[in-house]
Amino acid sequence: MSFEFTLLAQDGAARLGRFDTPHGPLETPVFAPVGTAATVKAMRPRDLVELGASLVLANTYHLYLRPGDELIRDLGGLHRFMGWDGPILTDSGGFQVFSLSDARRIDDDGVTFKSHLDGSSHRFTPEKSIAVQENLGADVIMVFDECPPPNDYDYVRQSLGRTHAWAARCLAAKTRADQALFGIVQGGIFRDLREASARFLLDLDLPGYAIGGLAVGETKPEMHAVLEWLHPLLPADKPRYLMGVGAPEDLVNGVLRGIDIFDCVLPTRIARNGAALLLGGRINLRNAQYAADPLPIDPACTCYACAHFSRAYIRHLVKADEILASILLTTHNLHFLLHLMDDLRKAIRKGTLAEYADEFLSHYPVGGAGEQERTDH
Amino acid sequence: MSFEFTLLAQDGAARLGRFDTPHGPLETPVFAPVGTAATVKAMRPRDLVELGASLVLANTYHLYLRPGDELIRDLGGLHRFMGWDGPILTDSGGFQVFSLSDARRIDDDGVTFKSHLDGSSHRFTPEKSIAVQENLGADVIMVFDECPPPNDYDYVRQSLGRTHAWAARCLAAKTRADQALFGIVQGGIFRDLREASARFLLDLDLPGYAIGGLAVGETKPEMHAVLEWLHPLLPADKPRYLMGVGAPEDLVNGVLRGIDIFDCVLPTRIARNGAALLLGGRINLRNAQYAADPLPIDPACTCYACAHFSRAYIRHLVKADEILASILLTTHNLHFLLHLMDDLRKAIRKGTLAEYADEFLSHYPVGGAGEQERTDH
Repeated sequence: MSFEFTLLAQDGAARLGRFDTPHGPLETPVFAPVGTAATVKAMRPRDLVELGASLVLANTYHLYLRPGDELIRDLGGLHRFMGWDGPILTDSGGFQVFSLSDARRIDDDGVTFKSHLDGSSHRFTPEKSIAVQENLGADVIMVFDECPPPNDYDYVRQSLGRTHAWAARCLAAKTRADQALFGIVQGGIFRDLREASARFLLDLDLPGYAIGGLAVGETKPEMHAVLEWLHPLLPADKPRYLMGVGAPEDLVNGVLRGIDIFDCVLPTRIARNGAALLLGGRINLRNAQYAADPLPIDPACTCYACAHFSRAYIRHLVKADEILASILLTTHNLHFLLHLMDDLRKAIRKGTLAEYADEFLSHYPVGGAGEQERTDH
Repeated sequence: MSFEFTLLAQDGAARLGRFDTPHGPLETPVFAPVGTAATVKAMRPRDLVELGASLVLANTYHLYLRPGDELIRDLGGLHRFMGWDGPILTDSGGFQVFSLSDARRIDDDGVTFKSHLDGSSHRFTPEKSIAVQENLGADVIMVFDECPPPNDYDYVRQSLGRTHAWAARCLAAKTRADQALFGIVQGGIFRDLREASARFLLDLDLPGYAIGGLAVGETKPEMHAVLEWLHPLLPADKPRYLMGVGAPEDLVNGVLRGIDIFDCVLPTRIARNGAALLLGGRINLRNAQYAADPLPIDPACTCYACAHFSRAYIRHLVKADEILASILLTTHNLHFLLHLMDDLRKAIRKGTLAEYADEFLSHYPVGGAGEQERTDH
């Protein structure tokens, strides 16, 4: 049955699960690469399959503007359009629209905004966001919400009222049975607001719950606290999605606190800037120190890039602005994160997550602010 | 034995052959994709293997400037550097240096030129070109020659003396036994000069002969005439390489006139501009007429791009400047040319080349000027 979430194992708060979708089951915890414009940048669908990706995120705002959600519907929907047969998740467009800080006007009914492509004027309401997401046809769609600055209590509280009303309107507007509408718990860094938001959304009995408004400036301990407050409140038999989070240490910390789904542009974005993920941090291949380095990006890695090419070669490609630089670094970075998720699932199954996480996190500094970016330009 | 050329079949002037190199045999006639900066743009080596590419060309001038031929030597040579285990051919750098028309000064000993990257001053001589090509370590290397305007008899005749002296100096400078040095027949569109050039180079007893200075502004009938004059003069047991030529109809016309090796940036260059090769011409996916077109680039094609994606999707990728647009169009265009070469080899083996060529060429207009570009920027 579609959208059934089955818990296969638990280890502390962490959960190993299977989430059934119309395009096949997802093993959770899962990390979703971001395909903003209906392509995970520099990757073919077959490359994503080979890397072990199972869920892909696409951005409603971008596809609405270009090439247009109606065109995608007429061509058979997003799966066929982008050649991805597995599950797809679309966001609501809210995060992107609210990010256009100088080019949008919000009211209780919706948001009017100007396109970043040509300055043309558009309007999203909860109903419009659902209509666009239904045209796109992803397996998981999201409620249209406001993502407020996390530290302003009064603003967050006021915004919650709107976000909750919009969630109910999204649910009422939804017509397709083959799409799961997830709610988004907001409430900034404030426990009472987060708990109130969770309770409101639970009453809507949605098939999954996202935690929004994190990795947008709060500290890591603040992010972890939000996850810990929500853990006992959210239903055990529904998937939990931490939006826009994908730094390796954040994935481990999220899984430790019960998160099942993540997405982030980090691995693909930094790849196109010449950076590669390594245990404990990253290196930038643009750096002169790699000019004659015969080692692969990571001598312990088994990805295609590390199996065949030296840092010196990849640095040359980066400096020469070669497409292959983006291909190889994206391959490596996605392999790193998808392999990490595989390790985390194995550790939960074996009941050894705490040890695995301790060892992994010992390579990373503690603290620091999160930084979210949910579209891959 | 390395560099043995074995004729397996002939059909008219056309030849089916096997050219043995230190990195394996080449089936000829063969088309070599161009990897200017030690990467065929938008392709991984494994993609090239899957497409059936067997020979890759790299540009000596570009690799000398960046990342430097000595660095590539120190990292084990070009094959290891770029992860290509098959045969590689490097040009001499001459064509590129002479193309810097405002930034080079030629004398009988060599050419002084300014880098297109940073304006720094450099000098190539025949000996320097060979030293750089030996550092790179390709299987086939080329003599350093001048590529003059093809229609100026006096200039071409004067230039031939220098080109011939340089060919002899290249042969004298060469030290590696695992590289084959090919001569380059020049002489513009003039029969007496072409024949004189061939005779001079034949005396050097080189393992292969290129025909240079074509597809640089002469007409197609003039190009064909040069090939026909040289056909009886060039030794049957040495491979013949038509430099910088790769339009589909030119490949067929070259094979009909005895050519064994081709290279050209055309399929990869036009791909990055949104264009796809089709029988009889090309289409540009940027065009609005493809915005909602559900067909693949070529419904009859079996490449990965045509098997999975619509013109509408690829147009969207082109308009959104997505890397996947270049990947898919390069895949299709290389598939088109490499598949054509396969068809030509089969037709020679079966003795049906004339019929195959007649049918294929019936889709193309006759005449028109050739246009060569031997580096893929």
